[in-house]
Amino acid sequence: MDTTVALAQALIQRPSVTPEDAGCLGIIGERLAALGFTLEYMDAGDTRNLWARRGTGQPLFAFAGHTDVVPTGPEADWTHPPFAGHLADGMLHGRGAADMKGSLAAMVTACETFLAQHPAPSIDLALLLTSDEEGPATHGTRHVMDVLQARGEAIDWCLVGEPSSKSTLGDIARRGRRGSLNCTLRVNGKQGHVAYPHLALNPIHDVVAGLTRLSTTEWDQGNDHFPATTLQISNIHSGTGVTNVIPGSCEVKFNFRFNTEQTPEGLKAKAEACFDGAVADLAFDWNLSGHAFLTDGGPLAGALQQACQDVLGVTPDINTGGGTSDGRFIAPTGTDVVELGPINATIHQVDECVCADDLARLSTTYARILELMCV
Amino acid sequence: MDTTVALAQALIQRPSVTPEDAGCLGIIGERLAALGFTLEYMDAGDTRNLWARRGTGQPLFAFAGHTDVVPTGPEADWTHPPFAGHLADGMLHGRGAADMKGSLAAMVTACETFLAQHPAPSIDLALLLTSDEEGPATHGTRHVMDVLQARGEAIDWCLVGEPSSKSTLGDIARRGRRGSLNCTLRVNGKQGHVAYPHLALNPIHDVVAGLTRLSTTEWDQGNDHFPATTLQISNIHSGTGVTNVIPGSCEVKFNFRFNTEQTPEGLKAKAEACFDGAVADLAFDWNLSGHAFLTDGGPLAGALQQACQDVLGVTPDINTGGGTSDGRFIAPTGTDVVELGPINATIHQVDECVCADDLARLSTTYARILELMCV
Repeated sequence: MDTTVALAQALIQRPSVTPEDAGCLGIIGERLAALGFTLEYMDAGDTRNLWARRGTGQPLFAFAGHTDVVPTGPEADWTHPPFAGHLADGMLHGRGAADMKGSLAAMVTACETFLAQHPAPSIDLALLLTSDEEGPATHGTRHVMDVLQARGEAIDWCLVGEPSSKSTLGDIARRGRRGSLNCTLRVNGKQGHVAYPHLALNPIHDVVAGLTRLSTTEWDQGNDHFPATTLQISNIHSGTGVTNVIPGSCEVKFNFRFNTEQTPEGLKAKAEACFDGAVADLAFDWNLSGHAFLTDGGPLAGALQQACQDVLGVTPDINTGGGTSDGRFIAPTGTDVVELGPINATIHQVDECVCADDLARLSTTYARILELMCV
Repeated sequence: MDTTVALAQALIQRPSVTPEDAGCLGIIGERLAALGFTLEYMDAGDTRNLWARRGTGQPLFAFAGHTDVVPTGPEADWTHPPFAGHLADGMLHGRGAADMKGSLAAMVTACETFLAQHPAPSIDLALLLTSDEEGPATHGTRHVMDVLQARGEAIDWCLVGEPSSKSTLGDIARRGRRGSLNCTLRVNGKQGHVAYPHLALNPIHDVVAGLTRLSTTEWDQGNDHFPATTLQISNIHSGTGVTNVIPGSCEVKFNFRFNTEQTPEGLKAKAEACFDGAVADLAFDWNLSGHAFLTDGGPLAGALQQACQDVLGVTPDINTGGGTSDGRFIAPTGTDVVELGPINATIHQVDECVCADDLARLSTTYARILELMCV
């Protein structure tokens, strides 16, 4: 069996449902230590993190990824047991096969290949791995970056292994991500009987005009690198179920996915202004999930493109689409961040799987990127 | 102890939390049978109903009321146990004292007084009593009216004993009520990820403009007898709690309190038109809780006013305010319906109570109305 596939299978067989690591970092750490990496476990809360670095100079190239996986749902729905790592017809099956234990295996074997050919490379290498990317993501990459920043340890280039490919390996990569900004809006009116509305203050009535403005505003038209900023109301809850009571309060949750045309502060002000004229007591509770970031003009995106062409024979569309990734915690420190990983068609689904040959080719592509960054 | 107060106390001591009757109708039926009433128990579902009639001719005067009461809440919050019927300082305490076991007692003793003085009156008498007014009200007065209508038995005049008085006994009575029309609106969009709104259809976004129109429309300005029609959104629920999922559906409940300027069909059409332009699948589920009704120009309202002046020394404001009552099921058959009962300051609250003397005076007022209707 191919060494990358074998390692991916071993990782899948550890049921590391977020925030569990289930021993994955131990397996990876052992391999990296043999290559001369220094291992530093930076556990925080319920999360296990590994900062593995080879060398003490600059520039520093880091792979980033996560060992945790999303829950399986009912295991009976799976064709093969989700933690068996079943290999059949060229496909490696299991939870995490594509997101992202296959990428982790490719990172490790890429380092092995690269260092076998370049025992004393001109760049330092690191892996930043966590067991809390699929969960709240508070004790994972965010924590490790805080520690690194506090001691002045900078990453120059970072490759995140999120499954970016769509139809064929390497067809899509990322050079940035939109930001994500959450708000919980609590509206406190005054409860009453529907027959006597003049004695009450209906929080639903008070807030729907603002919600209409919120949902119909054009925030921007995007730019060369990003699509337009979008807002989605994800939750609204008010009322006790009975039909004759005006509720006393209403809670709304909404989320911005924003591009580099926006700042969190600017969006907050514009969103809150949508509710001018409301008379109830409105409380906006904002939470910045991640800044927008863009890796622009650095050599890393060029190396990624060249490697995909050399190894895979495809020219990737290096865009800024998709959801968030842990790149949001790394890029703000000044690191150039790109993302490249396997086909994402089955991630978070029953019967998640990945083409075994793609993992071997992904490893070769990662190793080629390391070579190109040494030049 | 006054006979009305004593009967009210005996009824309060029966814990008839809706839809329980707890033996109240048996106590009342025994008293009415002694007066020559024919008792007909028309039980339906979990509800106990009594149609007690004296005479087989016309015109027919009926008292209407309910033996069920709303729950007490924590009994420890009460100064006196809610089903003790405690009498102190001239006040009769307990759940149902004002709503409406006091009225029931006054109806019975009014019949006793009236028939003692007029053994062969020119009018037939009836009591229409149910144990399901505070609950869904489907198996109570509505059911009895269906039975009466099916056999062609018509009520000419009806006095509902709901607690109509505000500051002093008899200061307010009712000659009509607004109608009540409920709607449950289900909006079916398409679930998705907040990062990819173009692949989803957000039911909240689709419906808030319509809700804004719904909550800001002036339906009418009322008329000489009724205040303006009002609409209140009582419930809105959408979303699973997580912040990154566009919900697939949204459920909204709203209620019209409408006057005689409106018809249920007209309101339904106008409300649904508020959502023109929505692209999601909208399903309106309407439920007419009660038609608007108005007793206008008949002798009953005049007798009520005269009796209040004669017995209580007050001239009642006979209006159409308040919530709904079982009068909504009686008036549509062509019956003149008025409502007069004790002070409602404590109904549905902890420490519900009524002035004992008011019950005796209410009995006298009811008896005086019967006398005036015989002329």
